[in-house]
This record gives sequence, C-alpha cells and structure tokens, in this order.
Amino acid sequence: MDLVQQVLMGNRRATARMLSLVESNSPQARQALAALYPHTGRAHIVGITGPPGSGKSTLAFAAAKALRAGGQTVGIVAVDPSSPFSGGALLGDRIRMQELSRDEGVFIRSMASRGHYGGLALATGDAVKVLDASGLQVILVETVGAGQGEVEIARQAHTTIVVEAPGLGDEIQAIKAGLFEIADIFVVNKADRVGADAAVAALKSMLSLSDAPTGDGWKPPVLKTVATREEGISALLDAMTAHWAYLQGSGERQLRDRRRGEEELRRALGAELLQRTLVRVDAQLWEGLLEEIAQRQIDPHAAAERLLESYPMLER
Amino acid sequence: MDLVQQVLMGNRRATARMLSLVESNSPQARQALAALYPHTGRAHIVGITGPPGSGKSTLAFAAAKALRAGGQTVGIVAVDPSSPFSGGALLGDRIRMQELSRDEGVFIRSMASRGHYGGLALATGDAVKVLDASGLQVILVETVGAGQGEVEIARQAHTTIVVEAPGLGDEIQAIKAGLFEIADIFVVNKADRVGADAAVAALKSMLSLSDAPTGDGWKPPVLKTVATREEGISALLDAMTAHWAYLQGSGERQLRDRRRGEEELRRALGAELLQRTLVRVDAQLWEGLLEEIAQRQIDPHAAAERLLESYPMLER
Repeated sequence: MDLVQQVLMGNRRATARMLSLVESNSPQARQALAALYPHTGRAHIVGITGPPGSGKSTLAFAAAKALRAGGQTVGIVAVDPSSPFSGGALLGDRIRMQELSRDEGVFIRSMASRGHYGGLALATGDAVKVLDASGLQVILVETVGAGQGEVEIARQAHTTIVVEAPGLGDEIQAIKAGLFEIADIFVVNKADRVGADAAVAALKSMLSLSDAPTGDGWKPPVLKTVATREEGISALLDAMTAHWAYLQGSGERQLRDRRRGEEELRRALGAELLQRTLVRVDAQLWEGLLEEIAQRQIDPHAAAERLLESYPMLER
Repeated sequence: MDLVQQVLMGNRRATARMLSLVESNSPQARQALAALYPHTGRAHIVGITGPPGSGKSTLAFAAAKALRAGGQTVGIVAVDPSSPFSGGALLGDRIRMQELSRDEGVFIRSMASRGHYGGLALATGDAVKVLDASGLQVILVETVGAGQGEVEIARQAHTTIVVEAPGLGDEIQAIKAGLFEIADIFVVNKADRVGADAAVAALKSMLSLSDAPTGDGWKPPVLKTVATREEGISALLDAMTAHWAYLQGSGERQLRDRRRGEEELRRALGAELLQRTLVRVDAQLWEGLLEEIAQRQIDPHAAAERLLESYPMLER
C-alpha cells in the first residue's frame, strides 16, 4: 500500500513521513499532495494566536484534551518556535505535552526552524492539508501572533481564536498586532489574574465600536479561561462549535475556503514562477547584476526589472 | 528641491514621507529608491533579535541613547508589532520612547501591521535603505526572533545581536529559534536576575562546541546587560564597533553586502514576477481554477502549474 493510502487510513507513521516528504517540495511531494487534496476539506481548522505570554500553547493543550474527551481527533500544528509543541519551554508544558503525545487521537507537528521553500505560510497550509486528509477532525494551528507571516497563517483558519492575558502591559495588544480584525473568538486567558475583567471590558468596548456585522452575522464572543487549570474550556469548545455551525449555515465557510484557496494559489504561483525563473537565469548576467548592486550602481528592484527584459511576454 | 534630495540632506519630514512612499511600491516609489540607492551602503546595520520577554526593545533604546551620547545618529526600525517602538507596551518603555523621539539625531520607524507588497523582509530592507541614504550612521533593526520571516530579516544586518534573558524557561532559547547560528554578539539581558551566569555559561559552552571559525575569524562574545538600568551598554557598543571593524578588515563586509544584495534581488524578482503574471492571468481561467480548488478537484500547486502551461518559456 502506498504512502498516500496509508495517510488516508490515518496511519500515524505514514502521516509523519508524508509531512516530511511534503516539506521537501520534491516532484514526488507535489504528486502526493495532489493525491491527498480531494480528501481534504473535512476538518475544522482553528487558529490560535495572540501575543507572547498570553498562554496560547497551554490553551491549545487544554482545548485538545477537552476535544479528545468529547471523542474528537485533534491535530496540532505549532508555528511558534518558542511553543512547547516545538520542543521547548517550561516544565509544566512539557508534562502536558507528554500527556498529549501518548494519545493516539492527537497528532502534533511543529513547523519551527525548518527551511521552508516558498515560505512558512505555504508549508503550514500543506501540513494542515496532510492532517486533514488523514482524518483528524479538528486542527489547531498555533501561531505567535507577531510578525506579518504569522497573521497570514492565522487568516487561513476557519475559526480564529485571539488570546489575550491581563498583565502583558496592555489589555488590548491584539489591536496593535493587527489581530483584532481577524478574531472570531476572543479569549482572555489567565483570567484568575488582576485585570482580567478590565481586559474583557476593553475588548467588548472595542467590539461595540467596530464595524460589527449586523443582522445574522457572527458576533465574536469574549471568553475567560484559566488554561493551566482547564477552566472555561468547555465554553470555548461551545463557541468553536457555534462558530463552525455559523460558517456552515451562512455560506461563510464557502467564502473562507475560497479565500484560502485563492491565497494558496497565489502563493504557489509565486513560488513556482521564482523557482522556474531562477534555474533559467544566465549565471553571468546574474553575477554581473550582483556586482552592480554591490557597487551601488543599480538597486535590486531595477536589477529584477532588467532580468525580466528577456521575458517580453511579462513586459510591464 | 525634490523629495530624494531632501532625504539625502537628512530632512526628517522628507524621510518620513519617503518611507510611506516606498511602502506604496508605486512606480514613483521604485524610481525614488533607485535614486537613493547609490547613496546607501554607509550605515552600520545592526539586527537586535531574541525571544519575547528578553528585553530587546529596552536594549535597543539603551544602545540608541549611548550611541547618541557618542555623537552618532541612529535609526531604529521595529519589525516586532508588540515592540514599544510600534506604539504599545509598558509605561516605562513609553517614557523611554518619548525621551528618544525628542532627539533630532534619532529616527524611529515601525513596520508593524502594515500591508507589505512583496513581504515584510522586502519592505524592511527598503526602509533601511531610505534611513541609510538619509545619513543615519547606525541603524538598529529590532525583530521578535520568532517566525522564519523575522530570522530572515535579522540575517540582513551587518551585525546581529541575539538577546537572551534568564527565566524565560530555558537558557538557550536562541538555539531552538534558529538564532544561534546568526549571532555575532550574544547578550544575556536582565543580568541582575538569578540564572544569568548559567545562561552565559550555557551560551559559551554551546559556542565552544560549535564549528567556530578558526584563526582570525570572529568569535561571538557573550555579554551581560541590564538594559533598564543601562548597565553593560558601553561594552555592547564596543563589541558592535569591534565587529564592524572586523567586517571591514576581513572582507566579510563585502561578503555580507553581496549576500544581502542577492537575497534582495531574489525577493524583488519573485515579487515582480508574481505581480506581472497576476495582471495578465485570464480572469475566467483564474475563477475556473478557484472553483476547481474549492471543489477539491485540483490542488493549488497543480493549479499553479496549469496556469504556467501558457508560459512555454518557463516549462519545468
């Protein structure tokens, strides 16, 4: 039985091998992804993002555990290199990780610190597809919520949870990080700390001021959790389920799938164009341009334009 | 006098306008960048990166203040959206920021949460060029050190400072985040905390085990600072100066400039290729492919390849 078939049957070792294969971006990898693609689109993809220190990983852990208790299978894709899912962090997190990783119904993959052809967003999207095809029902994608790439990755989810915590210096860090607009659910984690209610109030006030959808649109709830004690998690799962039902019922899911598809197509096209062009560039011309750039005779943009002069069908 | 001339004369308002223009990536912006480019290459570009909570911003502030006291002009480009340079964070940071922003010899620009055509790395590189051309002598680029894009940005600097702090859960977070290899100078900040000496020892031990350059190569020093009290900053400035002298004397500066030039050329080429292709794509073909992707009949990679079938000169 080939690797694709094994992944489709939910074989964990095959899934791990497929993820590594996909990261290689070999022709074989692209074939495998193409074969898996018709079997994707079933999982509920949930982004968990927020500023450093908000407890995203612990929340993802608690959510995964609760989902498992409800009988659902869970994938976790950690994009944050400082996440415990990426192998680091505090002892408490490591113990939680061990607990999760013994569970056959959970698959964890860290995207940290690997070289990713075509960028991390493309690679993360591919990893999510593999987990989706392997039959996992909910896929949590944890991103650090700092840096444009990470916000892009969060945007690829069906449901985006933005996590805040009191005492990070500001109740509404999400607004600065460009996360406010992409939140479907707000969570104020570490809600046993001073300032939690103020953070909730600040977020609610911001929400009432923003151009919230009217009528039957989704109104992002603001929840309180204490992820280390697994408090507030069932309300979070309820909100995730409610949002998933809203997406399905309103046609919004089709819209988001389509938007994600378009972004993926654009990214794949960009990566493919660049790769095909680079293998064709005349080495002498390339070196000559590098020398001119080094001598400050031409800037890189202008050099790129000169390279494209030999592509008349792409004339500006 | 046109905007380019005003930037070259160090006019601050012109520089701010130029930075906004450059972010628009209009034909006018590309012309302006091309005109500025021959006047770049003078500034010492210093990347400051490290895990969240290591105190990068406070360190950048202290370094900027000390550089100013030594008579040098300073640019600060903050890529981290949670940085105080990006408008947020703690009261202490805000007060420090106000102090800096009153100084005519300091120019601060935040790259946070803007839409960046061609990606944040390209946009950051362009912003650094504008500040370089405006005559600022040292340009500090602060990145969060999490996420591949941020590591790429740090790699563009002449001198990369990797900041750690005790008590972040692990003494050697830099190793996990892929930052170890790119460090020219290690700083253990918050060195008044328990665990600082252990962090220094861990880094030194890692350095002795790594494939350190032999002979007259650069050996990254491991320094201790308490940025909030401006302690250890003059040793940091000495190390920056020593590294700059090493780069100049060893020919390494030419190598790094060339490497940066090549990365910028590749990025500009990728952005240009994609843009020119997207404006040419047949709208019906594009919509048809989006529909097939949504129906899971074709995956985005394969769809990109199909789009490129009409580009025989880019055949695989």
